[in-house]
Amino acid sequence: MDLKQELDKRKDFFDRAMDKFLRNGEPDQLYNAARYLPLAGGKRLRPVLSMLSCEAVNGNVIDVIPLAIAIELIHNFTLVHDDIMDNSKLRRNLPAVHIKYGESTAILAGDLLFTKAFESMHNLQIDLSVFKNVEYGLIDCVREICEGQQLDVEFENYKIISEDQYLNMILKKTAVLFMYASEAGGIVGGATREQANALSEYGKSLGLGFQIHDDYLDMSSEESILGKDIGNDIRNGKKTLIAVHALNHAIGNDKKILQKTFGDREASDKNVQEVYNLFKKLKSIDYAKCKAEEYCNKAKDALKILPDTDAKQVLMDLADYSIKREK
Amino acid sequence: MDLKQELDKRKDFFDRAMDKFLRNGEPDQLYNAARYLPLAGGKRLRPVLSMLSCEAVNGNVIDVIPLAIAIELIHNFTLVHDDIMDNSKLRRNLPAVHIKYGESTAILAGDLLFTKAFESMHNLQIDLSVFKNVEYGLIDCVREICEGQQLDVEFENYKIISEDQYLNMILKKTAVLFMYASEAGGIVGGATREQANALSEYGKSLGLGFQIHDDYLDMSSEESILGKDIGNDIRNGKKTLIAVHALNHAIGNDKKILQKTFGDREASDKNVQEVYNLFKKLKSIDYAKCKAEEYCNKAKDALKILPDTDAKQVLMDLADYSIKREK
Repeated sequence: MDLKQELDKRKDFFDRAMDKFLRNGEPDQLYNAARYLPLAGGKRLRPVLSMLSCEAVNGNVIDVIPLAIAIELIHNFTLVHDDIMDNSKLRRNLPAVHIKYGESTAILAGDLLFTKAFESMHNLQIDLSVFKNVEYGLIDCVREICEGQQLDVEFENYKIISEDQYLNMILKKTAVLFMYASEAGGIVGGATREQANALSEYGKSLGLGFQIHDDYLDMSSEESILGKDIGNDIRNGKKTLIAVHALNHAIGNDKKILQKTFGDREASDKNVQEVYNLFKKLKSIDYAKCKAEEYCNKAKDALKILPDTDAKQVLMDLADYSIKREK
Repeated sequence: MDLKQELDKRKDFFDRAMDKFLRNGEPDQLYNAARYLPLAGGKRLRPVLSMLSCEAVNGNVIDVIPLAIAIELIHNFTLVHDDIMDNSKLRRNLPAVHIKYGESTAILAGDLLFTKAFESMHNLQIDLSVFKNVEYGLIDCVREICEGQQLDVEFENYKIISEDQYLNMILKKTAVLFMYASEAGGIVGGATREQANALSEYGKSLGLGFQIHDDYLDMSSEESILGKDIGNDIRNGKKTLIAVHALNHAIGNDKKILQKTFGDREASDKNVQEVYNLFKKLKSIDYAKCKAEEYCNKAKDALKILPDTDAKQVLMDLADYSIKREK
């Protein structure tokens, strides 16, 4: 089985459906701004996850498309607003929405994508009581994403956070949408309660592993240690699992160095290198790699109770890939 | 019948219910920011409208409270985001949310209020197919509010717009939520299709009249003509019905004066006074007053088919009040 081919097949199918759903509207400028990011591509991991979960319980993938679109639009709405908050200039190698269309239109474009997500949910052709539960799940999910983003913003000003605080933040900010995509995808496909729980557990572990591996990727390449991004993460005091581990395990002089340089926006390249060396010495980078692997294994374990299908195999391979990918 | 007493009675009942619904959550800062504006008071016209509409078709007012809360939260979510876009410093005589909590938290607080509105909708105890339709109506409404706000932002840069463009903008930005509040309030109360349509027409006309009267109020007091607000509206080129009427009816030298001063941020007090005098000369202020009265009468006409109830009388009086109020 070629994982990339299996993912791309579903991604292409999804992209055509979303393109059709996100037709234009008035005023032009607002709709152009709202369509800009979702139609600029992306891995479509979350919608593809909901499609695979539907298939893995022998559901018809067509049925889950309105849910898949809603999930991708919610993801994009949060990216548009997050980029304003973080003052990020680029997204998917293009100017961020607020850079291209101005901040007012970007705030509105995010709000419109939020609205369109729920509009798409109403296209689901499922039993009304199932609809109500599945839709409530998405509302709950957005609430948690808002909470997670607020925690992420607040943590930048904290000197130290615990590993539990970090995990709670990435659970809300990233993993709940993976979790929702797999669970709700399964439910739309007719999953039993046991199957839906298994898919939920899979999505949660996949999302956590995925986010931790992201942190690891940013930090693991020796060549790029003094590159802009890593230097910035250290200077901005970004609370990755690697940083959290180091902050909680450094003692003596190491602790002093970390406390002095981590989060110091004026830190010299030499000081940044020193912090990176500490991350290695304290085995914080290895620790993050192990944690990501743990979550990958947990994700795969959760799938055991599902019938053997192609979709299940793709989900297994996707879990492996999520901690092996290099970008 | 004492209108103020009738409105206050329902407002107090509503406030207690919303206060209970908007309980705190984590992180504190996000929930404090989200609760700040809705719990800072306000006229509660929209939720009270949905309560009266429910009563006017002999529905039980308790049943409509989750809808009333959702409507008020949607209204507040748009205010929080609009204040960021307009860079408004004050709202309900308090610092705007983005001034008090910072812009990032304000964007998230708006998003959270949006989410909480739909959470409240799920507390409606009504037939599932009615729920689905009523909820879809609110989604559609938010889409139109986004479109209306975008038009409002864009119109500031236009030299002139037509009366139809103006009416379309305030329909979307303001009137659709009044329209939805009365129609959906009626539906939850068990309205027939004919009654729901009548309430929808009432809410639409009330919302249009209300917004036009707002424009009129800002401009009608001679004493305040050179006060900051009116000067600012003229200097910012704010497209009120008064301005739209004048821009479309001025000829010759009057037209030149308007074109020169209206929307000129550097205009002198003398020039601003000149524009105000033109608004009076062209009878644009009177025109707006008449238009608001027309909509008030249309609103009252729509109610004719409803049974005679106390709630119907309050709705009639509310229409009169909406164009007589002085603040």
